[in-house]
Amino acid sequence: MALALIHHPVVDKNGKTIAGAVTNLDLHDIARAAKTYGVEPFYVVTPLEDQQHLVTEIIDHWVTGVGARYNPDRRDALALIRLQPSLQAALEDVRARWQAQPQTVVTSARMAESDLGWDGLRRLAADDRPVLLVFGTAWGLAPELIQAADYRLAPIVGRNGYNHLSVRSAVSIILDRMFTGCAGDEG
Amino acid sequence: MALALIHHPVVDKNGKTIAGAVTNLDLHDIARAAKTYGVEPFYVVTPLEDQQHLVTEIIDHWVTGVGARYNPDRRDALALIRLQPSLQAALEDVRARWQAQPQTVVTSARMAESDLGWDGLRRLAADDRPVLLVFGTAWGLAPELIQAADYRLAPIVGRNGYNHLSVRSAVSIILDRMFTGCAGDEG
Repeated sequence: MALALIHHPVVDKNGKTIAGAVTNLDLHDIARAAKTYGVEPFYVVTPLEDQQHLVTEIIDHWVTGVGARYNPDRRDALALIRLQPSLQAALEDVRARWQAQPQTVVTSARMAESDLGWDGLRRLAADDRPVLLVFGTAWGLAPELIQAADYRLAPIVGRNGYNHLSVRSAVSIILDRMFTGCAGDEG
Repeated sequence: MALALIHHPVVDKNGKTIAGAVTNLDLHDIARAAKTYGVEPFYVVTPLEDQQHLVTEIIDHWVTGVGARYNPDRRDALALIRLQPSLQAALEDVRARWQAQPQTVVTSARMAESDLGWDGLRRLAADDRPVLLVFGTAWGLAPELIQAADYRLAPIVGRNGYNHLSVRSAVSIILDRMFTGCAGDEG
C-alpha cells in the first residue's frame, strides 16, 4: 500500500487547474501517519523544480542531516518520502516495486460519484495487488485524475455536513479507518 | 463536548516542563476537525502574552477580517476557538456554559496507565455531563495534568509500534473514532 500527495494537477477554489505549493507540515504529518499505519512509499508529486528542491531539502535535513540526530523518530517517517514529477511516474514506481499493476484510489471531500466505501477500502488493503491512495492539495485533485482512477473513495462524513478537513487530517482518518478504525477494544 | 490544546504546562523531549509555541496550522487543522465532528469550543490554552496576541490575530483575520470573506468555511471553523490562559480557566468556562461539572479526558501517545478505551470514550460522548478532551503540544502534557484528569485515554496504536503522530493527526483520528470511527457502511 502506497500513498501519493499531488501538487499538480489540482484545482483552486474556482475549479481552475493549478500547481499547488508544497507545505512543510504536509510532509511531516503525512509521513508520520504513513509510518504509523505501515504505508509506503509516500510519494510527494510536483513537476515544479523549485518545489522539488524544497522537498529534497526537507528530506535531507530530517533523514541524513541535523534533524536526523535531533529526532530519529522523525527521520524514520520522512525516510518514507519519494519525490516524483507526476502521478504517472509514481505509478511506474509502484509497478516496478511490486512487479504488479497498481490499483488507484482517489479521494476528495466533494466526491460526487464515489464507488468505494470503507469496507471496500479495507478489502483492497488486504488484496495482493498494490494500492496507491491518491490525495490532492489546494482545493483537491483535478477532475481528469478522479475520472482516470480505478476507485473513487467516499468522502469522510462528519456530524453536520461540514466537509472541509485539512488534507493532513483526511489522510490520518482514512488510514485509521482502513487499518484500525473499528477498534472497539477497551484500552 | 469541548476540546483543549495545551501549550503550558507541556514537556520537551527531555521531559522538562515548558511553554510551547503556538503553531498556526494546529489552530486551522484542529478547528476544522472540531467543526466536522461538532465539538466546541476549541480552547487554545497559553499563558504567554505574545502567544495570546498571535492567537487573537489569527482568529481576527479568519473570523472577522479579510480571511472571512476569502474563505467562509475557514471562518466557521476558526470561530470555534476560545483563547484561555490555563486549563483551569477553560474548565471554568465549560462549567459556566453547561452549568455542570466537566469530565476531563487527557491524551498522550505515551500514556503509561490508560483507564479509558474507545468504547468508554463513545459512552462519555453520549453522557449528559460535558466532556473536555485535552491535548498537549510539544512532547505532550505535563505529568501533573495527566494525573489530575478524570480519565486517561488509551494511545492510538498503529500497525508497528510507531507512536509519533502529530497532534493534528491525533485529534482528527480520536474525534473520528469517537463519533463515526466504526462506520462500516459502503459509501
